Amino acid sequence: MKSTLSGFPELLPQERVVETFVQDTLRSTFELHGFSGIETRAVEPLSALESKGETSKQIYMLERLQGIRDREQRGEQSGGVGPNDLGLHFDLTVPLARYVLENANDLHFPLRRYQIQKVWRGERPQDGRFREFCQADIDVVGSQHLAFHHEVEVARVMLDALSKLPIPPVLMEVNNRRLLQGLLQEVGVQDFDAVLQALDKLDKVGQEQVAQQLSGDGLTDSQVEKVLRIAGITAKSGASLRAQVEALGLESDLISKGLDELCALLDGANEVAPGQVEASLRIARGLDYYTGSVYETVIPGATGIGSICSGGRYDALAVRGGRTYPGVGLSIGVSRLVSWMLSQGFEASRPTPSVVFVAVLSEDQRDKSDAIATQLRARGIPTEVSPKAARLGQQLANAEKRGVPYVWIPGDGQAHVVKDMAAGTQETVEDVASWQVPGKDLPVRVYRRD
Amino acid sequence: MKSTLSGFPELLPQERVVETFVQDTLRSTFELHGFSGIETRAVEPLSALESKGETSKQIYMLERLQGIRDREQRGEQSGGVGPNDLGLHFDLTVPLARYVLENANDLHFPLRRYQIQKVWRGERPQDGRFREFCQADIDVVGSQHLAFHHEVEVARVMLDALSKLPIPPVLMEVNNRRLLQGLLQEVGVQDFDAVLQALDKLDKVGQEQVAQQLSGDGLTDSQVEKVLRIAGITAKSGASLRAQVEALGLESDLISKGLDELCALLDGANEVAPGQVEASLRIARGLDYYTGSVYETVIPGATGIGSICSGGRYDALAVRGGRTYPGVGLSIGVSRLVSWMLSQGFEASRPTPSVVFVAVLSEDQRDKSDAIATQLRARGIPTEVSPKAARLGQQLANAEKRGVPYVWIPGDGQAHVVKDMAAGTQETVEDVASWQVPGKDLPVRVYRRD
Repeated sequence: MKSTLSGFPELLPQERVVETFVQDTLRSTFELHGFSGIETRAVEPLSALESKGETSKQIYMLERLQGIRDREQRGEQSGGVGPNDLGLHFDLTVPLARYVLENANDLHFPLRRYQIQKVWRGERPQDGRFREFCQADIDVVGSQHLAFHHEVEVARVMLDALSKLPIPPVLMEVNNRRLLQGLLQEVGVQDFDAVLQALDKLDKVGQEQVAQQLSGDGLTDSQVEKVLRIAGITAKSGASLRAQVEALGLESDLISKGLDELCALLDGANEVAPGQVEASLRIARGLDYYTGSVYETVIPGATGIGSICSGGRYDALAVRGGRTYPGVGLSIGVSRLVSWMLSQGFEASRPTPSVVFVAVLSEDQRDKSDAIATQLRARGIPTEVSPKAARLGQQLANAEKRGVPYVWIPGDGQAHVVKDMAAGTQETVEDVASWQVPGKDLPVRVYRRD
Repeated sequence: MKSTLSGFPELLPQERVVETFVQDTLRSTFELHGFSGIETRAVEPLSALESKGETSKQIYMLERLQGIRDREQRGEQSGGVGPNDLGLHFDLTVPLARYVLENANDLHFPLRRYQIQKVWRGERPQDGRFREFCQADIDVVGSQHLAFHHEVEVARVMLDALSKLPIPPVLMEVNNRRLLQGLLQEVGVQDFDAVLQALDKLDKVGQEQVAQQLSGDGLTDSQVEKVLRIAGITAKSGASLRAQVEALGLESDLISKGLDELCALLDGANEVAPGQVEASLRIARGLDYYTGSVYETVIPGATGIGSICSGGRYDALAVRGGRTYPGVGLSIGVSRLVSWMLSQGFEASRPTPSVVFVAVLSEDQRDKSDAIATQLRARGIPTEVSPKAARLGQQLANAEKRGVPYVWIPGDGQAHVVKDMAAGTQETVEDVASWQVPGKDLPVRVYRRD
């Protein structure tokens, strides 16, 4: 992976095989769970993009070159940006909300949709962040109502998808906004959002600094101590979580409902990925539109890359004409994940789609090699034909350099010879139709190089 | 397909299944022929985008909202656009040329690459054209040299790919720039490009107008007549083409080489798609960087959508440091094709990935339904669980509305019942592991509705 243009990474063909494998695996898992794929246009009007607030600085605005040139020629100044001007989307949630509203009459609710697409953020290049990256989102969106069990479901779908990648088992950390808000209310916290924002920094800056900030926000020492005790709670089972929360001695309907939900999420998700889901009451997720479950997912040991799969429940993804669309969704940072995998030595079992490289004995026998390739392809075996009827040794070297595992040497009146490049062995083959690719070699696999 | 924002079409989930089917089919065919997938960033510096000339008006330039706002606050004017400013790519060829130069040391030549990606063109909205659309390109790129046989190969790959789509057999029209240039030279034409541009309009404006334009360009009546006679030549076999060209009585090395190539392309491509390839000497393709074979592809009878797969040979895709990268490539307009398919009643065999909809008898038995779904998914059967434990009749109606072909009613102490929604039949199933999806229903198919 390299970026000749800062923030816009590109992959070599063999690296792209890894990314494609990840995207395919996610997509097929999402479809296995009955999620429909959609794509939304890359652009939204500024008014829609800015409705989310804090990310607005990172928006890339678009303008037609012709418009700029025409204006310059007329000696006019730019009229600034207006709400209808177009910018590139910076996530897939804002577009989903619009898509749901526009197509509400043609969609079935709850809508189960996945979306694997690029997003763009005009980050400052010195931050070393991606300005263009791929996300893979799933959301379940209801009309007026969305049952809680979907908050468990989306976690299970993502855990299923991530378990099919050749990465170490992930740890999904979950929390519940109701529970957290209920507990903080009973502690006497007034400014819920300020405390959430402070807690969001716990991992980065540590307890002491967060305590200072909370004091600065007007919390008493006793309140700060209680908030930090709450934020310190983690549990791997509903029973353990319930015991720890009850030991706080704080009670309210909100706490009770939030605790029930978080226990159900924890136990329901752990059922499909034992030990991989943990309730952690410090998980706040900055965005203030989350109202129920919130999720973050890390690869243990992969420090520095942060959460690779996050999201939450929002009671109002979109609202129009007295109708509200609640949702719950999770988003995988595909580019972030793939970039980490590549840095860790993950690679594809072969760098190119071709399984067979058919040699060409002489240019006037190219049609013979083409015919063999056509027969192999008809049987689903990716095949390329040597670009040049060079000396056989050169063709073998070329196939090896390209990473094609088998070289087919057409029989010139006699049997064909197929060379296994890795093993250094060869076999004679009488009939193209009878040759089988050793099972391990047909589908591309991705694994970590030793 | 609808565009609430002019030129930016979006698909409903069931329409997206059709698009995905097309993209998957193209991709798997490209890989079967040993083409590697790459993706390039969406943006290029203006200097690169403008190197192609005429399309520059359609470029979308990018600017960070924060930059615009900062400038406005300081009361500054826009500094205009410079060569390093970023714009969205309008095709996949400019990015490929840059990618090849940047990664030349890490790529194997000839590079066989495919790329299925969005491109953007700031067309005037009143033209009804797409401003965002998906292209599927294949190119073979050599270093210093690229053998002619790749000009046959790319045509064969695209014909193979298009034959796997449920559309009528396409007609690929091919020509050769050398042949055309050689013939026009012998006719005494000076301004080759002007004549090519005039011929490009033959289909649109007819012979008479083209003749007028050619006369206006300074050709004599005899030259105009000869040019139109050349442009009128079509042939479905090399032999027929050769006979017609030889009957013109024009001879040169360029004509001879071009004719050999076009005959080889015609016969080589027709071999895999009999009758679907036609030499047509009026095919000019406006772009002046084509130097050998040129291609256009139509769906006979699908008037109005124009060419769905075009391209050609270019001797200098990219040049740097004394090294030249010749290439040959073809590009399918996926959005254009899919939009035509949808308008013609093509649809997916089911609108949603789910093959099975598992009913839920009561909310406290949801885990039972979840467990059945998990078992089915483990066997590769896409499954969703009813969002609500409503009355069974309501759940069946919901499954039908969503277009899921089978409803699974969990056995409550007895055997399960599986309903075939289309047939209106049902079967009892003792064991989840023993149930098989009828073969026709598992992979999504796309066909034309009667």
